[in-house]
Amino acid sequence: MTVTATSLRIDRSRLLTRIDELAQIGALPVEGREGGSSRLALTDADGAGRDLVTSWMADLGLRVDIDGIGNVVGTWPADRLDPPVLTGSHIDTVATGGRYDGNLGVLAGLEVVETLIEAVADGDVELEHPLAVGFFTNEEGSRFAPDMLGSLVYVGGLPLEEALDTVAIDGAILGDELERIGYVGGMPCPARPPAAFVELHIEQGPVLESDGITIGAVTGVQGISWQELTLTGQSNHAGTTPIDLRHDAGYVAAAVAVAVRRMASETPGLVGTVGRIDLHPGLINVVAARATITVDLRHADEPALTSAEARLAAEVAELATTEGVDVSWRPLARFDPVRFDPKVVDLVEDVATAHGRSVRRMASGAGHDAQMLARVCPAGMIFTPSVAGISHNPTEFTEPDDLEAGANILLDVILRLATAAGTTP
Amino acid sequence: MTVTATSLRIDRSRLLTRIDELAQIGALPVEGREGGSSRLALTDADGAGRDLVTSWMADLGLRVDIDGIGNVVGTWPADRLDPPVLTGSHIDTVATGGRYDGNLGVLAGLEVVETLIEAVADGDVELEHPLAVGFFTNEEGSRFAPDMLGSLVYVGGLPLEEALDTVAIDGAILGDELERIGYVGGMPCPARPPAAFVELHIEQGPVLESDGITIGAVTGVQGISWQELTLTGQSNHAGTTPIDLRHDAGYVAAAVAVAVRRMASETPGLVGTVGRIDLHPGLINVVAARATITVDLRHADEPALTSAEARLAAEVAELATTEGVDVSWRPLARFDPVRFDPKVVDLVEDVATAHGRSVRRMASGAGHDAQMLARVCPAGMIFTPSVAGISHNPTEFTEPDDLEAGANILLDVILRLATAAGTTP
Repeated sequence: MTVTATSLRIDRSRLLTRIDELAQIGALPVEGREGGSSRLALTDADGAGRDLVTSWMADLGLRVDIDGIGNVVGTWPADRLDPPVLTGSHIDTVATGGRYDGNLGVLAGLEVVETLIEAVADGDVELEHPLAVGFFTNEEGSRFAPDMLGSLVYVGGLPLEEALDTVAIDGAILGDELERIGYVGGMPCPARPPAAFVELHIEQGPVLESDGITIGAVTGVQGISWQELTLTGQSNHAGTTPIDLRHDAGYVAAAVAVAVRRMASETPGLVGTVGRIDLHPGLINVVAARATITVDLRHADEPALTSAEARLAAEVAELATTEGVDVSWRPLARFDPVRFDPKVVDLVEDVATAHGRSVRRMASGAGHDAQMLARVCPAGMIFTPSVAGISHNPTEFTEPDDLEAGANILLDVILRLATAAGTTP
Repeated sequence: MTVTATSLRIDRSRLLTRIDELAQIGALPVEGREGGSSRLALTDADGAGRDLVTSWMADLGLRVDIDGIGNVVGTWPADRLDPPVLTGSHIDTVATGGRYDGNLGVLAGLEVVETLIEAVADGDVELEHPLAVGFFTNEEGSRFAPDMLGSLVYVGGLPLEEALDTVAIDGAILGDELERIGYVGGMPCPARPPAAFVELHIEQGPVLESDGITIGAVTGVQGISWQELTLTGQSNHAGTTPIDLRHDAGYVAAAVAVAVRRMASETPGLVGTVGRIDLHPGLINVVAARATITVDLRHADEPALTSAEARLAAEVAELATTEGVDVSWRPLARFDPVRFDPKVVDLVEDVATAHGRSVRRMASGAGHDAQMLARVCPAGMIFTPSVAGISHNPTEFTEPDDLEAGANILLDVILRLATAAGTTP
């Protein structure tokens, strides 16, 4: 299929205005530039954000459905009950978040729906499927675990009752908080799968900016392997204990961190991080008796991730044996890689190219609602650049031109998925 | 000089009984074996320990002198005022200490003096110099900083008034505590230098046991270089940030720890330890923005220590530059190596050999009062093995045969230093 760009365009200033209005709720100012927001899931601020976005949906004449976990979906035409082509993301933030993470996907989705409603009214477009834009509850996981909880329940990956019993880090019960802010709805949950799902999101990493590319055609989400290692050696005097008689848990911890880096550098597509190292007793003149470290390994390909885990285990075993240190492993999390629908990935790439935008295929390093939707329907994602790769921070920033480009590419992707023959108007 | 062993021997059971009696003050029992003691400097327990040892000195007819910082020296004959050959150590302990650290040197010294008094009385020995045994205030430094404070004042390295103003970790003033336990004395301080000083001490490390050797002829005390490095990189998402775009302070910290180990393994006589690594924010899925680590380098040779510091600086600079991480250095402590009097070291080695004991020359990795005395008189040390290298722990242990061997070698070393021609009786 050769793709050409349609003449339809979203309204840039309307999009930027809505992003700014939503960012004012729980605003976190940053001196001299745009600020971020703090809207932890199901807090009053999140409730106020939901009310604002829901009011915009209603203003456009969408049918606003809320399910039992508080996911909100606005559908057009309001009387269509068959599976829509769905877009969206989330509007909850981390405690000190930016204004684009999640919000962009929801508000660009709203912009796409509004633009297409106008195009249909003008007779320029005829839709096969209804259109829908939604936001999912507690994507960030900063207040309730796990992250992506709303979309997980939406696709049937977690029973509703169990999800409602989730306890927040502040002690609140998810179900109580949902009721408190008025977002317990009657839409069945899990939901009937949509016809397709496409999510626009900022990259939250530095790859696009570093490569000078505007659009990421997201091929999937990296698999994640989180492990904690506890190394037990022997505490000794740093002055009186010769190197060859040591059982230095701190040294092995450091050597493992260096090995993780080397593995990641040598293995295409692998990222590896040791973000936590705790030494005990942690004194300048005492050889550490015990060390606890975490290892975060990610790869978009399941066999490659498994192989990295095996190589790590072998390297750790050799380092520990040589030093005479015991190792115990605690798996903390393991998620298989997610592959998005190849046709959706191709479509994103083709549309971006047709719009004259530079585009590269890439795996997402972070988790997104789209990976949950991928369990039940053809799904994909579009990335726009994050300046300096910064996210989860009030200084998170994406150039307005890039936001506009991303939204227009989302527009044409949604349009093609929602029209019968994939033809352009 | 060919050395032969004398026929004099200390009384093993008297020595072991005194060690046990002193250990009962502030006793820390260990199930199924000998326990340790808790007698932090100038606490009631330290006072009680001082009273006991001082009473033993008085029982032997020694003249007991106490100086302004609470150092206690027992001299024989009591009417001799010329410089004695001095032995001794300390009787304060770390909070959870063993029964040998320090105490052995004081009580073996007492045993040596008692044995030589008997030998003089029997007409077997004639002394050129008086004999003295002492214990120095606050050697451990666990309650007041710095460690070896009493011997430092004794040799004039720290003004008495300044030392008396030292504030304990518990807020107490050193001078007040000294007065409270009744150990402010009138002996001038700094003291008149002794003729010589020899200290018997447990090794507090695993070298002698590991080599199957009974006696260490201590050549000096390693120089110490303590530095703190703060590495500042950039916090990034562990999933979305490719390895080559990271400024990972945690990785550089780990690589420095590995470099320290490699340097120490490659450089004869160098020990190097990274005992503390703190990563910030210290989260499994966040590339560390900041890392603080400590580096402890020790070598018995000053140029070698300086060269190790230079090599470390160069390796850190290269690692930090490659990763794009800033480094700041904070020097925490720097002590030049101490060399004991070569004649005293030779004497210890010769006497040990004459006693049929295996002996090796070695530098001390830890600090000792003898290094202060080395500033003002010929000084040396004798080490006995520490089982498993364990010290500063109630389970600290040295075999009674080794304690006895060490005390008998101290006896002959002191005898030779105290007799005019170094001849044997």
